[in-house]
Amino acid sequence: MIQGHGDDRHLYEEEILADLSSNVRTEHFPEELPSLLSRELEHWTHYPEPDGGKLQKELAQLHGVKTGQVLVTNGSIEAFYLIAAAFEGGKATIPIPTFSEYEDACRTYGMSVRTVPWERLETEGPEGGELLFLCDPNNPTGRTRSPEALLELFRKGSETIGVIDEANAELTPFPSSLLPLFSGDEDLIIVRSLTKNFGIPGLRLGYIVAGEAMIERIRSGKMPWSVNGLALRAGDHVIREHGGRIQHERIQKLYERSEGVRERVERIPGFETLASDSSYFLVRMGKGKASELKERLVRDHGVLIRDAGNFKGLDERYFRISPQSPEANERLIKGLEDWSRNSRS
Amino acid sequence: MIQGHGDDRHLYEEEILADLSSNVRTEHFPEELPSLLSRELEHWTHYPEPDGGKLQKELAQLHGVKTGQVLVTNGSIEAFYLIAAAFEGGKATIPIPTFSEYEDACRTYGMSVRTVPWERLETEGPEGGELLFLCDPNNPTGRTRSPEALLELFRKGSETIGVIDEANAELTPFPSSLLPLFSGDEDLIIVRSLTKNFGIPGLRLGYIVAGEAMIERIRSGKMPWSVNGLALRAGDHVIREHGGRIQHERIQKLYERSEGVRERVERIPGFETLASDSSYFLVRMGKGKASELKERLVRDHGVLIRDAGNFKGLDERYFRISPQSPEANERLIKGLEDWSRNSRS
Repeated sequence: MIQGHGDDRHLYEEEILADLSSNVRTEHFPEELPSLLSRELEHWTHYPEPDGGKLQKELAQLHGVKTGQVLVTNGSIEAFYLIAAAFEGGKATIPIPTFSEYEDACRTYGMSVRTVPWERLETEGPEGGELLFLCDPNNPTGRTRSPEALLELFRKGSETIGVIDEANAELTPFPSSLLPLFSGDEDLIIVRSLTKNFGIPGLRLGYIVAGEAMIERIRSGKMPWSVNGLALRAGDHVIREHGGRIQHERIQKLYERSEGVRERVERIPGFETLASDSSYFLVRMGKGKASELKERLVRDHGVLIRDAGNFKGLDERYFRISPQSPEANERLIKGLEDWSRNSRS
Repeated sequence: MIQGHGDDRHLYEEEILADLSSNVRTEHFPEELPSLLSRELEHWTHYPEPDGGKLQKELAQLHGVKTGQVLVTNGSIEAFYLIAAAFEGGKATIPIPTFSEYEDACRTYGMSVRTVPWERLETEGPEGGELLFLCDPNNPTGRTRSPEALLELFRKGSETIGVIDEANAELTPFPSSLLPLFSGDEDLIIVRSLTKNFGIPGLRLGYIVAGEAMIERIRSGKMPWSVNGLALRAGDHVIREHGGRIQHERIQKLYERSEGVRERVERIPGFETLASDSSYFLVRMGKGKASELKERLVRDHGVLIRDAGNFKGLDERYFRISPQSPEANERLIKGLEDWSRNSRS
């Protein structure tokens, strides 16, 4: 497990007034949920369903797939570890920069891991016979490829299995999910998060959609009761009361707000932003280190950003911003302007 | 994962009025907790600490061990799966009858598993070079051995490592924990549950106490964020506000109540109870199957018991009772009396 993921406010004694370090969208937080769950004591005092069977059925219905094509997991992280366990000792290709947990999960299960820049992967294609981890929209860049392009990419490999991480799928207004193209294919594993979209990552709830044989293979390594009772009930709630998805208009609005922040950061001397299709983006510093900037922003402004220097394929100059409320965004801009002024003087 | 664990009320459409199927103690439920957590939104809207580091320190302090001798887990179940993963391909000895998840976890990681009756294990001792899973107090029997006897038992084996499941340690008034004898030993792995004792198994929170090298070995297979934010906060709460343990007087009282129920069941024709040191016990039926009795009790009385027929070493005549409130216990007695009358006529 690497140190230095986003949302690492527990490492700081300072009060965090604006947390732009995590892609989680607090705007979609179902405000009625904590009070609702505090009254439903059975989810606290009883064991959860061992395999989250009720939610599994609801997710299958939501996506128009079979119940046996869904596996409920303890966040999307358990999904990656279970997938790696199911292919223990095999090989994996991971285009970088991307979310570091694919590699950690693969190495935990003795897989040989090849990391390769996205551009080279797109030119050379997969080796064949591997798990190919594709994060779309990608973390930390926010870039998306069309679902058709993604399918084509991993299907260039002979017996390559595509593992598509769609945890960020509802952070982009562009079409970016392979679910509409899924028809029981056994070479496609789609991983999703429910708690991330709805701003409840503390609860830990994700799921896998894949062919029935693949789900069975992955499920065979799974422990019972890995998903807690409150997460299962929260999943049920956001599906039944909120349609299980974020409305396109809201996604569009967040993206526009994020682009507005990106344009403002771009105009601050010493910072260069990278284009993104999602409501988060990377910034490259002209000089100095993101780790130093991060410490300074916490100390002087109570602003938390994601130092992206530990993403393979990036370096110490990169950080990631996930704009939040207008107030939080103003704090960030002010902090970056201060840094910019001081680093020139 | 076997079907037919306790607390399987989700399998029934009937209303369950008295759930005596699970060892969880609703009497110790911290009633203020749900409302408290519903107001602390940060545990919902933010990622939990990846490794539960704050709670790890608190648990170390509670038990007077080093921080590096504690690993926080997603219920005690994650502990068993991580332990099995750390000894992948090795061998395990499991005295039966006992909790079925040890064997499931070991088989998931390709361990060779030898199940042996408790009595034979005590005569013959361990083979050597194995993980020896000892549940104390044992599930489903409720029997305990003295901590010294347990240590002696697994140390008869050359290079045998004792995995002591103390999830039920606070359901017996007799001394039954190896923690007071633990002094950093690398051949001893103690697994505990916080959520079971405090009646909050829906949250999923357990932990391991073991030598520092052993903890490192086990930790290396662990995914980050496996324990959700509400569970971590609940653990913090029951340690700080409730001392992290159940008071001896309360345990004694529950045990006496359980013994009272056991004596009444013993007097019902057709049922024979087995002696227990804990506040749950096994019952053997003179004729008929526990699965049929269970269905009948749910249907006619809204009472849920634990069919113990799927414990290796028991058979279809056994069920387990975990007495609860006086009202719940009366429902059970009435249901058993009805069954007894009907099965004789």
